[in-house]
Amino acid sequence: MYSKSLEKKLKALGIGVGDQIRLEASGSFYDGRLMPRGDDSDNLVIKLENGYNIGINATNAKISLIKKREEKKETVKQKEEANGEITILGCGGTISSKVEYLTGAVYPALDPAELKKAFPEMEKIASVKARSLFSLLSEDVNSTHWKMIAEEIIKEIKTGAKGIVLMHGTDTMHYTSAAISFMIQNPKVPIIFVGAQRSADRPSSENEMNLLNAVYAAKSDLAEVGICMHATTNDDYCFIHRGTRVRKMHSSTRDAFKSINTKPLMAVDYRAKRIEKLNDYAIRGKTNEMKVDLKINSNVAMIYLHPNIKPKLIKSLDDYDGVVLVGTGLGNAPTNPFGDRDASPILKEIHGLTSSGISVVMSSQTIYGRLNMHVYTAGRLLMDAGVIGDGMDWTPETAYVKLCHALGRTKDLKKVRELMETNMVGEISERSVLKYWEGR
Amino acid sequence: MYSKSLEKKLKALGIGVGDQIRLEASGSFYDGRLMPRGDDSDNLVIKLENGYNIGINATNAKISLIKKREEKKETVKQKEEANGEITILGCGGTISSKVEYLTGAVYPALDPAELKKAFPEMEKIASVKARSLFSLLSEDVNSTHWKMIAEEIIKEIKTGAKGIVLMHGTDTMHYTSAAISFMIQNPKVPIIFVGAQRSADRPSSENEMNLLNAVYAAKSDLAEVGICMHATTNDDYCFIHRGTRVRKMHSSTRDAFKSINTKPLMAVDYRAKRIEKLNDYAIRGKTNEMKVDLKINSNVAMIYLHPNIKPKLIKSLDDYDGVVLVGTGLGNAPTNPFGDRDASPILKEIHGLTSSGISVVMSSQTIYGRLNMHVYTAGRLLMDAGVIGDGMDWTPETAYVKLCHALGRTKDLKKVRELMETNMVGEISERSVLKYWEGR
Repeated sequence: MYSKSLEKKLKALGIGVGDQIRLEASGSFYDGRLMPRGDDSDNLVIKLENGYNIGINATNAKISLIKKREEKKETVKQKEEANGEITILGCGGTISSKVEYLTGAVYPALDPAELKKAFPEMEKIASVKARSLFSLLSEDVNSTHWKMIAEEIIKEIKTGAKGIVLMHGTDTMHYTSAAISFMIQNPKVPIIFVGAQRSADRPSSENEMNLLNAVYAAKSDLAEVGICMHATTNDDYCFIHRGTRVRKMHSSTRDAFKSINTKPLMAVDYRAKRIEKLNDYAIRGKTNEMKVDLKINSNVAMIYLHPNIKPKLIKSLDDYDGVVLVGTGLGNAPTNPFGDRDASPILKEIHGLTSSGISVVMSSQTIYGRLNMHVYTAGRLLMDAGVIGDGMDWTPETAYVKLCHALGRTKDLKKVRELMETNMVGEISERSVLKYWEGR
Repeated sequence: MYSKSLEKKLKALGIGVGDQIRLEASGSFYDGRLMPRGDDSDNLVIKLENGYNIGINATNAKISLIKKREEKKETVKQKEEANGEITILGCGGTISSKVEYLTGAVYPALDPAELKKAFPEMEKIASVKARSLFSLLSEDVNSTHWKMIAEEIIKEIKTGAKGIVLMHGTDTMHYTSAAISFMIQNPKVPIIFVGAQRSADRPSSENEMNLLNAVYAAKSDLAEVGICMHATTNDDYCFIHRGTRVRKMHSSTRDAFKSINTKPLMAVDYRAKRIEKLNDYAIRGKTNEMKVDLKINSNVAMIYLHPNIKPKLIKSLDDYDGVVLVGTGLGNAPTNPFGDRDASPILKEIHGLTSSGISVVMSSQTIYGRLNMHVYTAGRLLMDAGVIGDGMDWTPETAYVKLCHALGRTKDLKKVRELMETNMVGEISERSVLKYWEGR
């Protein structure tokens, strides 16, 4: 993985991935665990005690072994408990990253036995079974994984799980939670995604509180897909956000996930055995029949509209089935960059897409607020060109996932529009026509 | 503008654009002002009293004239006052949109005389001169306009203006304020952008308070580029946000503009004659020499990274000089969509761009928080591939504008990186190395 000469040097020193080593160069030294690396490089990567990785050119550095990594105890076989009332499914992410550091593996891995050992309080909350579906950092999760997750959830529900918890990386957790919301409608039990912003080997890790609150929420009366994460920067309680109405809004704080244009569904505190209902949600035992549709069309692009954007970028999207525009303000696009609105090249290309049967959907860079494409000429022209989205208050990410879902069901432009404009699972806050015109 | 048959019908009724008309169809009727339209359509567009436009199919509607539009009084000549201490430059946008409704014109237009008449209190705050640069809704403003604006600001400063106020649409005001921040460094006087979320003909319009506070701030000791907008949803005071650290975060509320990863520079209340300093800023009379560089390279793309994004989309960017990636979390991209990190097609294409001399810069979809590309493998691989951005806490928009600016000065990859990583005008919150490793 490292350059040949470096691999040789390491071998001679008896050093392998996962070992504790010291690097000395130009008078400084760094102690840390040797990490693996994906390319042919002379830069050694070590994980410092504080959890960060650093890369240091090893050509002139002195390398010494501090301590061989502990051989992993024989892995407890991933046998499932037959009668767990809550099923935990592992999808990787920082929340499962403790194992990564112990083994030196690049990918996080969830070992159910280890999970229970690490969080002994869990068994007091519920009888739990756990297994790993895959181990990816969430930037690598895509619609193939959405399907895998959905299939496994359904399997678990069919075999009697009273609630599902999914351990998932945070970067794209809100895309996945939205996807599962559309794929499994009217779920009979809570489906709770949970992640962590800091890995378990760091003192500030919040994974225990998030995970235990997720298990607690999975026992609740919620019959929806939610995301369980820290409500504040204190270790006090968590919010359950609706799976289609939530977004990672900070790169590092523990309370990074925010409900957008709506309130969280509930506040959860397993220590106080307290659940506070904050919003309307579907109630366990009172839902319509579960509706499963796993078809996803991943041939969808998402394009950020910005000053100077070139018409040819829009034109180049002609082999997609759908395009989500991340526009400005109430749902605008640069329709008049050269002073002649009737000859707007951007508008022409957008119209070109819709004319050739591609569904084009609007969302806003503002993240918060509702689209209203009637107010300004740009929005009106975009609607005339067939762009879908007026009146919606979805996030760009939920619009994206919903379009993948709708295009999995049909490519008919009119039907896609109908599906997109229908509030399927609470992803749109409805507003009466009267309010719609006068509400602001 | 409308279809031929519809134009004929309107002509026969003696109805023209700007007239007050009634449309009756299926038992309902709508009164409003006839708006112009850019395409050949049978849908009449009228502006309702509440400020919204609606489009109604006129084929079977009864159309009647309520009142001809008032002929515009002779336009007061746009002569400038010679000795205004504050210069207001109009760039269009909702804040100038009153004129649009009166004339029926598609574009907002600023008439200095009308401005003063509309806001008589303004003269009590400062001696003001005003002129219009152009009249665009801000989704149509691009780097050509950034240059025009910068040139006019410099002209005004050279001829003695003590402060500049720019009336601008809100959708992309933060792109323009960032651009002016980089183009005119160490400005001697305040350069204050101001907009409005609701047009002047609506009771909830906030344009008066915003504009008067902007004029008040333009007299202050600030020697930076700022944006002046409502601080809260009440009509109480405004914030001045640093031009590079601000973003429109809501599609419709009056307090839509938020400082990102920093505090606003000041709170301003012209009625109470109060300015409260909230952050460090450059002080009038104590700045280094003004540095002007108007070169902007607009051949820059901004790409939202999302699950299922296709490598070929990245590949297709090979004729740009720069690319801003809007990545996930701490600065990640899908580097491993097919289970084989070493063969990651997305990473390969990003590396392809940097290898061919294109500057690739990272930013985050989270909007808030700092990039840290050392923590996870994806970030590390992206840095190895030459992606710039580790440690930065810029918004995607500021990263975009800064890259346009840097590429205007040089295309040398190393020099672009140096420029990007240098805090030029307060667009990056600096953090000591110690803090950088331990701060979270």
